Amino acid sequence: MRILVVNVNTTVSITDAIARQARSVASPGTEIVGLTPRFGAESVEGNFESYLAAVAVMERVLSYDQPFDAVIQAGYGEHGREGLQELLNVPVVDITEAAASVAMLLGHRYSVVTTLDRTVPLIEDRLKLAGLDSRCASVRASGLAVLELEEDPERAIESVVREAEQAVTVDKAEVICLGCGGMVGLEERIQARTGVPVVDGVTAAVALAESLVRLKLSTSKVRTYATPRQKQILGWPRALLG
Amino acid sequence: MRILVVNVNTTVSITDAIARQARSVASPGTEIVGLTPRFGAESVEGNFESYLAAVAVMERVLSYDQPFDAVIQAGYGEHGREGLQELLNVPVVDITEAAASVAMLLGHRYSVVTTLDRTVPLIEDRLKLAGLDSRCASVRASGLAVLELEEDPERAIESVVREAEQAVTVDKAEVICLGCGGMVGLEERIQARTGVPVVDGVTAAVALAESLVRLKLSTSKVRTYATPRQKQILGWPRALLG
Amino acid sequence: MRILVVNVNTTVSITDAIARQARSVASPGTEIVGLTPRFGAESVEGNFESYLAAVAVMERVLSYDQPFDAVIQAGYGEHGREGLQELLNVPVVDITEAAASVAMLLGHRYSVVTTLDRTVPLIEDRLKLAGLDSRCASVRASGLAVLELEEDPERAIESVVREAEQAVTVDKAEVICLGCGGMVGLEERIQARTGVPVVDGVTAAVALAESLVRLKLSTSKVRTYATPRQKQILGWPRALLG
Amino acid sequence: MRILVVNVNTTVSITDAIARQARSVASPGTEIVGLTPRFGAESVEGNFESYLAAVAVMERVLSYDQPFDAVIQAGYGEHGREGLQELLNVPVVDITEAAASVAMLLGHRYSVVTTLDRTVPLIEDRLKLAGLDSRCASVRASGLAVLELEEDPERAIESVVREAEQAVTVDKAEVICLGCGGMVGLEERIQARTGVPVVDGVTAAVALAESLVRLKLSTSKVRTYATPRQKQILGWPRALLG
Amino acid sequence: MRILVVNVNTTVSITDAIARQARSVASPGTEIVGLTPRFGAESVEGNFESYLAAVAVMERVLSYDQPFDAVIQAGYGEHGREGLQELLNVPVVDITEAAASVAMLLGHRYSVVTTLDRTVPLIEDRLKLAGLDSRCASVRASGLAVLELEEDPERAIESVVREAEQAVTVDKAEVICLGCGGMVGLEERIQARTGVPVVDGVTAAVALAESLVRLKLSTSKVRTYATPRQKQILGWPRALLG
Amino acid sequence: MRILVVNVNTTVSITDAIARQARSVASPGTEIVGLTPRFGAESVEGNFESYLAAVAVMERVLSYDQPFDAVIQAGYGEHGREGLQELLNVPVVDITEAAASVAMLLGHRYSVVTTLDRTVPLIEDRLKLAGLDSRCASVRASGLAVLELEEDPERAIESVVREAEQAVTVDKAEVICLGCGGMVGLEERIQARTGVPVVDGVTAAVALAESLVRLKLSTSKVRTYATPRQKQILGWPRALLG
Repeated sequence: MRILVVNVNTTVSITDAIARQARSVASPGTEIVGLTPRFGAESVEGNFESYLAAVAVMERVLSYDQPFDAVIQAGYGEHGREGLQELLNVPVVDITEAAASVAMLLGHRYSVVTTLDRTVPLIEDRLKLAGLDSRCASVRASGLAVLELEEDPERAIESVVREAEQAVTVDKAEVICLGCGGMVGLEERIQARTGVPVVDGVTAAVALAESLVRLKLSTSKVRTYATPRQKQILGWPRALLG
Repeated sequence: MRILVVNVNTTVSITDAIARQARSVASPGTEIVGLTPRFGAESVEGNFESYLAAVAVMERVLSYDQPFDAVIQAGYGEHGREGLQELLNVPVVDITEAAASVAMLLGHRYSVVTTLDRTVPLIEDRLKLAGLDSRCASVRASGLAVLELEEDPERAIESVVREAEQAVTVDKAEVICLGCGGMVGLEERIQARTGVPVVDGVTAAVALAESLVRLKLSTSKVRTYATPRQKQILGWPRALLG
Repeated sequence: MRILVVNVNTTVSITDAIARQARSVASPGTEIVGLTPRFGAESVEGNFESYLAAVAVMERVLSYDQPFDAVIQAGYGEHGREGLQELLNVPVVDITEAAASVAMLLGHRYSVVTTLDRTVPLIEDRLKLAGLDSRCASVRASGLAVLELEEDPERAIESVVREAEQAVTVDKAEVICLGCGGMVGLEERIQARTGVPVVDGVTAAVALAESLVRLKLSTSKVRTYATPRQKQILGWPRALLG
Repeated sequence: MRILVVNVNTTVSITDAIARQARSVASPGTEIVGLTPRFGAESVEGNFESYLAAVAVMERVLSYDQPFDAVIQAGYGEHGREGLQELLNVPVVDITEAAASVAMLLGHRYSVVTTLDRTVPLIEDRLKLAGLDSRCASVRASGLAVLELEEDPERAIESVVREAEQAVTVDKAEVICLGCGGMVGLEERIQARTGVPVVDGVTAAVALAESLVRLKLSTSKVRTYATPRQKQILGWPRALLG
Repeated sequence: MRILVVNVNTTVSITDAIARQARSVASPGTEIVGLTPRFGAESVEGNFESYLAAVAVMERVLSYDQPFDAVIQAGYGEHGREGLQELLNVPVVDITEAAASVAMLLGHRYSVVTTLDRTVPLIEDRLKLAGLDSRCASVRASGLAVLELEEDPERAIESVVREAEQAVTVDKAEVICLGCGGMVGLEERIQARTGVPVVDGVTAAVALAESLVRLKLSTSKVRTYATPRQKQILGWPRALLG
Repeated sequence: MRILVVNVNTTVSITDAIARQARSVASPGTEIVGLTPRFGAESVEGNFESYLAAVAVMERVLSYDQPFDAVIQAGYGEHGREGLQELLNVPVVDITEAAASVAMLLGHRYSVVTTLDRTVPLIEDRLKLAGLDSRCASVRASGLAVLELEEDPERAIESVVREAEQAVTVDKAEVICLGCGGMVGLEERIQARTGVPVVDGVTAAVALAESLVRLKLSTSKVRTYATPRQKQILGWPRALLG
C-alpha cells in the first residue's frame, strides 16, 4: 500500500524527517510518500497559518497523480483533516488524534508535550472536537518554536523531557504524546527519563492508517464527510476544481 | 464606525442580502461594507468549502485598504474566525456565535435552524468549540441548499417555520437562531408562527460588533490570537504576506 | 431608550457608582436610571443575602412607575435574573453573564476576579447555570469585602491587579472579567499591567441591553420565563401583587 | 429529634399533606413539625414565586422559636436551600436533591415526574447545580398544576402514571422520582403499574435528614455556607435581622 | 433489621474494624454482620485485586444463609456493587458512593482522601461512573498502604490530616470523605484540625442502607440490575450457581 | 507475533468464531490463539457474569504457558481490561474500546448495535470510563440474546440491520460498531443496507494490538496499571498466585 504523509508547512527538511519517522514503523509493502505543500507558512504555529495549511494540504494531495491508499496529515493541532475526508475516498488520519487514540490504550491519562505555548489551545481544541480530551491530563509547551527544534535538537530534547517529567509527576499522566510532526527521535530519551510510554503522532498515524486499509475501512460518506457537491469554485488552484 | 461584513461564499447577491440585513439594525453612524471573497465556492456547505472560505475571507479582509473598526464573518458554522482574530487588531464576530450568545440572554434553551442536513455537524462543532453548546436544544435542518433559498424564498420560509415549530414543541427550545447568513426576512414570519424570539446571526453580530467597538474592547493578543510571527509564506495571494 | 440598572444591595453610593459606570458607555439617547432596593443587605456576599436581593430587586423594579426598555441586574453572581424575566416583557441582563458573554468574543479563555473568597462558588454556579463556564479558566478572589472597596480604592485596585496577573500567567486567561458591580474605574489599570482586555460587567450589560432593544428582542414567554399565573400571594409588598 | 418540614407555598392543606407524608416514615422519636411560610404564593411554579418562597422559608424557619435538629425544604426544584444552609447550624435537605440521591442508589438512570411543564427547567437546573443530573434520564411533566392535584387526585394519579410509564419505556429510567411535595400516596400505584421503585422527595429527605443527625454531620461552615457576616439589613421581617 | 457489611479483602482484623465502625452508628434494632471474603487479596489496591474482590464478595454474600435486609460493600473505589445488585433483592450500598452522596448534602465541594496513590484513579472512576464526580474537588492520597494503616495508626492519622488540610486550603473542598474502609476513628481528629465535616464511608453507608430499608426501597429490577437469567456457569464456587 | 484472543464466556463455538474473525484480518506472521475461560457463564450479559468473566479471563491468560505479544479481551462492554493490564507487560485491547476508537476515525458520530437491551448500560459505562462516549450517537439493542445469535444467524442479521438503519437515520450515526464478540460475518450485509462503514470489535482490536506491538508500545506501569504488589492471595486458582 501507499500512504501519503503530508507536512503542513513548506519546510522540506521537516517533510523529510517526518517521512523518515513514518518509514521507521511502516510495514514491509507500505510505501511512504512525503509531501510538502506548495504554498503556506514555513512553520505552522497559529490559526492563520493553520487555515492556510488546511487548504495547502488539500491542494497538495489532490495534485498527487498516483494512486494511494491513505493520507496522514502530519501537523499537531492543525485544521484540515475534515476537508481531506470530504475530498477523498481513502482514510485520513490526523497525527494529533492518532497519538491520543493510541495513548488511551496504554494508560489512565495522557499528556501532550508541544512546542510553542500558543499552540497549546489549538491542540486542546482539536482534542476537544475529536472527543479525545476527557482523558488528557494536560497539554504542555516545551517553549521552542518549530524551526528552532531543527537547529538545536539537544536543547529541544532536554526541554521536552522536562515538560514530560512534570506531566507525569504533577499532572499524573501515564503516557506522553509528542506534539509536533518534526520532533523525531525523542521517544527513547523521554521513555528512559520518565519511565512512561511515549507516543509519536506520525508513527501512531502510520499504524492506524495501515490498520484502516487492512480492515478495508474508510471515511463514511453519508453525512458530514460526504463528497462535496459539484459547484462553481472561483479562482483556485486548479486541482481543487475537481 | 465602519464594519466589514464578509460573506463566506462568492455569490454577490448573497453578499448584498447580508449587507442589507446588517444595515437594517446598524446604528446611525455605522457604515456597513459588504465584502465578497475573491475565490472559493459559490456556496459553502461542508468542511472543504469552509476551509477555502476561511482563507478567502482572510485574504479579502487584508486586501481591503480602508480603515475599519470590526469584522463580521457571515457564514453559519464556518471555520475562520480565529484566523481573522490573529491577523487583526479589531474585534471579529462570527455570526454563529453571535446568534447563540444573544439567544442565551432570551430563553432557557435555544435551537438553530439551518439548511442542508450536512451542515448540522459543522454548526454543532462550532458551538462546542465556542463553549456555547450546553444550552442548545438542537440544530435542525430545513432541507434546502443555500442557493435554493435564493431561488424560492416562499418554500424556504415554510421549511424553516416547520423546523422551528418542531424545535419549540419537541426540543423545548424557547428561542430560534436562524442558521444561515442569507436567510433574510424570516424573523417576523417565524416569530408569528411559533411565538418565540428569532435571532438572526447577521443582525446579532452587528449589535455585538458595535458593542465591542463602543466598549473599546478587542481581541486579546497575549496568547492564542497573538499576531502571527513574521515568517516566510510561500506562493500566496500577496495580501497575506503582510 | 431608558434602562434601569438595579443595585442588589441597599448602599446608595454603590448604586451611584454603578449608574456612573453605566452612563460612561451608554449611547446618546439612552437614559440610565440607577435603582436601589428598598430592603435587603448593605452588601451582598452569600446566598442568604442574595435571595433577599433577588426579591428586593424584583420589588424595586415593579414599583418603578415609568416606562423602561430594559433592566440590568447589577450584582455579580447573584440570584434573581430569572424572576425578573418572568415578571417583565423587556429584556433583563445579569452582569455576570454579560461579562462572560462579551469576554468569550475576545479570547480563548477568561477569568473572573471578584472580592470575597466566599463569593467565588456563587459566581461559578451562576456561570454554570448560564452555560458560560466551559471557557472560564478560573474565578479568583481579591480578598476584599464589597464595602472595603469603597473605603480604600487604591488597595482594592492593587489586589485585583495581582489576582488578574495570576489568572493570566498561571491559569492562562486571555481576558479578565471584573466580578463586582461596584468595582469602577479599574479597567485601565488592569489592562495596563496585564496586557489583556478587561471586561466590566456593568458596561458589558449596558451594551448587551441596548443591543437587545435595538434588535427588538426580548425574553421568550413560551415556557420557563412565561408571565406568572394569576394567583393569591400573601402578605407581600404590594407591587408584587400585580 | 425534631425535624422542620417547610412547605414552600402558603397553602396549609399542602403543608399538612407534606407533614403526614413525612411522619409516615419518620423514626420513633422523630417529631415532624410542618411549617407554612407566612407570605408568598399559594403555589410555587416559576422563578418569581420560587424566589419569594426562598425568602419566606428562611423567614419562617428563623421565626420558629423551639430547638430543632434539621430542616427539610419541601418544594421540588425551588431556590433556597443554600440560604438556609448559611443561616443554620443544623443540616438542611432539599427534597429534589434527596430524591435524586436516593434514586441513584437504586438504578442506572432515574427520571423525575413533575406537574406543570414550566417547572421542568427549574428542576433540571436544580439537579445540574447539585451535580446530580448526569444519571437523570429525563424530567417529565404530568400536565397538572399544583393546586389541581389537590382537587382531583384520581386524575393526578393517572397523569403521573402515564408519564412514569413513558419515562421507563422510552427514556429507560429504572427509578421514578415524584416531583412535587404535595403528590402524596402515589408511590404504590406507580410502582404497581411500572414495576420500578418510586422515590418520594419528602420521605427521602426525612430519611437523609435523620441520617445526618445520627451521623452528627451538618453543613460545612468554612466557605460557601459560612454564617453570614453581621451587617445592616434594611426593612426586613425582623427574624432575619438576627 | 440485619445489614451485611462485607470487607473486600481477606484480613479479618480489618473486617472487625469495619464492623465496629458500622455498629457505632447503627440504630437500635439493626444488627451488623461483618463478612470476610473467603478468597482474594489481603488488601485490595488495584484493578486485579478489585476484580477478585468483586467476585469474592458476591460469593461470600450468597453463601450467607440467614435472612438480611441490606448489604454494604466496604471497599473504597472497588468494583462489584453492580453484580451484587443483580443477585440480590435487597439494597446494596457501596461506601465510596455513600460517602460522596452524603458529602454533597454538606458542602459545595468535597474531596476524598485515600491511601496509595495508585488507588486514586480507581476512586475517580467509581465516582465518575456513579455520576457523583462533578462536585468532587480532588482525590488525594495519604501515601500509606492499607496494611500499614493497621500497623501504625498514629502515622496514618497524621498523613490523612495533612492531605485533608491541603484539600481544604488548596482544592477548596468543604467536606472530606475518608477513602478506605479500615480508616477508623479518624473523623474527630480531622474535623478538629480542618474545621470541616468528615464523612466516613462505612457509617454513611449504614445510614443510607437503613434509610432504604425503612423507605421500603430496593434495587430496580427492570433493566440493568435485573436478576441474571438462568444459565450454565462452569466450575464456580457452588453458591454462585444459584 | 502471537496474540491471545480471549472469549469472555465458556462457549467454545463462540471462541472459535471469534478466533476465525480475528484471523481474517491478522497480518501474515501473526498467530491468533483463541482462549476460552475455564469457568464462568456460557454467555455474559450482565454485571454478575461480567465480573466472573473478568476473573476467568485473567486466570485463563495467566495459565497460558507460551510467550505472547498482546491480549485481546473479546467481550463487548465487559469488565476486566484493567486487571489484565496490571498483570501483563504486553498490550491489552478491549474490543468495545477498539471498535469505538476506530469508528471515531471514520465519521462524526458512531453508534453501537448490541444484543440484549440490558447490556446497553454496560456498554455505555465502558465507553464513558474509556472517554470514548462523547461522539457516540447511541447504543441500540437488536433484541437477541448472545446464544440465540448462534442458533439463528439470519434472524440475527436482520435484527441488527434494522437497528443499524435506525441509528443512521434517526440518531445520525455515520459509523456502526457491532457490539458483540460473536456477531461474525455481518459487516458486509449491514454496510450494503445502510451505506456506512461497519466496525467489528474483534478485527479492530487485532489491528490495534498489532499496531501497538509494531510500535513497541505497551501499558504504562507508573501508576494505575502498575504490576500488583506481592501479597498473600487466599484460595485462588493457582495461576493468579504469581
